[in-house]
Formats: sequence, C-alpha cells, structure tokens
Amino acid sequence: MTSMPVFPPAFCDQLHELFMWRRDVRHFRRDPVPESVLAELLATACLAPSVGLSEPWRFVRVDDSARRQAVRDDFSQCNAAALSARAGTDAGRYARLKLAGLDDAPHHVAVLSHPDPAQGRGLGRATMPQTTTWSTVMAIHTFWLAATAAGVGVGWVSILNPERIKAVLDVDPALELVAYLCVGYPAQPAVTPELERRGWEQRAPERREWVHR
Amino acid sequence: MTSMPVFPPAFCDQLHELFMWRRDVRHFRRDPVPESVLAELLATACLAPSVGLSEPWRFVRVDDSARRQAVRDDFSQCNAAALSARAGTDAGRYARLKLAGLDDAPHHVAVLSHPDPAQGRGLGRATMPQTTTWSTVMAIHTFWLAATAAGVGVGWVSILNPERIKAVLDVDPALELVAYLCVGYPAQPAVTPELERRGWEQRAPERREWVHR
Repeated sequence: MTSMPVFPPAFCDQLHELFMWRRDVRHFRRDPVPESVLAELLATACLAPSVGLSEPWRFVRVDDSARRQAVRDDFSQCNAAALSARAGTDAGRYARLKLAGLDDAPHHVAVLSHPDPAQGRGLGRATMPQTTTWSTVMAIHTFWLAATAAGVGVGWVSILNPERIKAVLDVDPALELVAYLCVGYPAQPAVTPELERRGWEQRAPERREWVHR
Repeated sequence: MTSMPVFPPAFCDQLHELFMWRRDVRHFRRDPVPESVLAELLATACLAPSVGLSEPWRFVRVDDSARRQAVRDDFSQCNAAALSARAGTDAGRYARLKLAGLDDAPHHVAVLSHPDPAQGRGLGRATMPQTTTWSTVMAIHTFWLAATAAGVGVGWVSILNPERIKAVLDVDPALELVAYLCVGYPAQPAVTPELERRGWEQRAPERREWVHR
C-alpha cells in the first residue's frame, strides 16, 4: 500500500473549477462518447462510498430506440402535467425552460439501486436504511464529476414516472430508479446553472454559513 | 463568462487518486482543522447540484460538549442494538469493527435537509420528490471530496436514531437528518476501505460492467 498523496494547491484549484463547471447539461452534441471513456467513467463511479461497502448501484445503458422513445414519451407526459399544475407567469416561465436533453444526447444511462442488498450484510443501515439509496446517489455524482473532467456532459432527468421507466427498461421490479441520465458532449458549456441564467432561481448565500449548535 | 476549462490528463489522474483515497475515516487526530479551511469546504459543498437549484442542505456544526456526548450515547445504543441482532461469527466480526470516530474527531457536522423547500419552486420533484434529499447527499459528497483533497478526513456515521439526534440538536423537526459527519485529520490514511481490510466485505467487479437494455 502506497502512502496517501498530498494534493497540491494547483490540483485543489482545478478541483474547485471542476465543481464550478459541473453543470446539469440539457444541450448535447450528437456525436458519441468513445466506449473506452464510458467504461472508465463507470469504473470510476464504482469508487464512490457505499454503506457497508454494499455497492447497491446498477448502471444500465439504454440503447434500444423503442425504449428511448418510450422514455421521451414519459418525460413529455410528466412535464406537461407539471406545467399544467402551474399558473400565470410561473407557468409561462416553466414552459420556456428546456429541462432535458433526451432527444440529442447520444447516450442514455438509467441508474437503479438495490433497496436491500446482500452485499454489505446490512452494516450501517439498521436505523437509516435510506443510506443504501444515498450510496447510489454518490456513485451518480462521482460519474458526473469524472465525466465533467473528461469533457463529457451529464443531465439528470427526474421528470419521469419511475415505475413506468422500470417497466420500459424491463428491470427487476425490486430495484429503485434513482436517475435517468443523458450523457454526451455539451453543446453550450456554461459555468452558471441554466435555471439561474433563465431567471428561475438563484443560489442562497446563507447556505454557505455554518449553523452552530 | 469565461470558457469551459479543459481538464488536462494530469488533473484527471489526480482526480482518480482523489476518488481512490476518499475514505470513510474512523481514526482521527485530535488537532482541529483551521476555521478558514472548514469555511472553504462548506462553500465548496454548496456548488453541488440540487434539483431546481433548491439547495435544500443545512450544515450544522455541533460544538456543544453535552450535545456531542448525547450523540455518542445514541451511537453506542444503536450500535449495541445492531450487534445484538447478529449471531455467531457475524456478531464477533461486527463487534471488532470500529464504526465511528466520534470520540477523537475534533469537529462534528450534522447535515440536514429541507424536505419541501420553497427555493427551486418545486421544479423537477413532482414525480421524484426524493431528489431533494438526494441533492443534500451530493453536497455531503462534495464536502467529502474537497476535504480529502485538503488532507481532511470525513467519516459518515449512520448508526444513529435520526429523530433522537434532531431533538439533541434542537433543529426544526421538519428537517430530515441525512448525515452526521466526523471531521478532522486522519490518523491512518488508507487506500483500501476499512471494511475490506478487516474482511467484512469486498467490492463486486460486476458492478463495473454496463447492463444493456
């Protein structure tokens, strides 16, 4: 076992840039990402922490065009429902947002999670069983950061009916759908979140202050 | 707005090292981390993605020694219950694990999440409301990675009764406890997970293979 590396200030500065530029991408170029790059991103995602070393994540590439179309249809339906629940200027603003890159993204990745994995033998999840799903969330976030560093964009689509998507993908119904990711090269890289640029929401500075107890 | 940086191969290699060395730390030195470093880690954590830009996370420093002791007592009780639910060699192995660094870690950080924040105006969470909590999980993971790069260790304690911890911390009962973190300089940095070194569990290579649909 080698010793812990010291991460120099230049690396830490670039890491900060990485966090700054990791965006939820909704505008993609159509050219594919090489398979070797996608394989590396998945291997890196598996370095994420998991409760009890349970690795509950299941990464699924959605290649079939009929399945992809069914996912797009589900998004359209859920997004229309979300819009119809809004009124006035809020509805107008919502309608103008582009909330998914499902049409152009060359790769679709569904990420599912085993809710009660044998691996890890239950350690750490007796009082907080959600930590299993949260492990999968951290694997997705690891994938996202590694992708950003490789120049690859990721967009997380949550405006979907998870049960319907699981049926479309024909996966074990016991698995939980955590994310449906669009993956590809970003067409419009930006350092500011699209929702902020379009006036939907902005960051709250008070989040950056500790609460003390 | 400047243009998207290209992250060079040397950075990507170091980023991979960072993911490799980000451990769940349970062995801490007692010397404190400078406040300026802790403030930077919190600011960096707030760069995490959040559904609708809702930033639902609330980071709480637990400074009060009576509250810390109450957290330790809750851990002891929950861990004893988890042990008593096991039998034979499994119980023996479990009993020998060190599962938290609550005694030595100079800093305790509780991370809570607002389950239904006004910020973000509900965008993206109509069909998958858990994405709010998952945003907080990614902020914790961002904190963890930035800490590792700064040489600071983080250990996530999940063997706790979340409702009891919220009462101990006297926080808004509507908030959800997501994590209780031990933070400090690691006493025994390691590239292999402690659970793997102690023979509790190991990684499953098949997780690193795509499932295709």
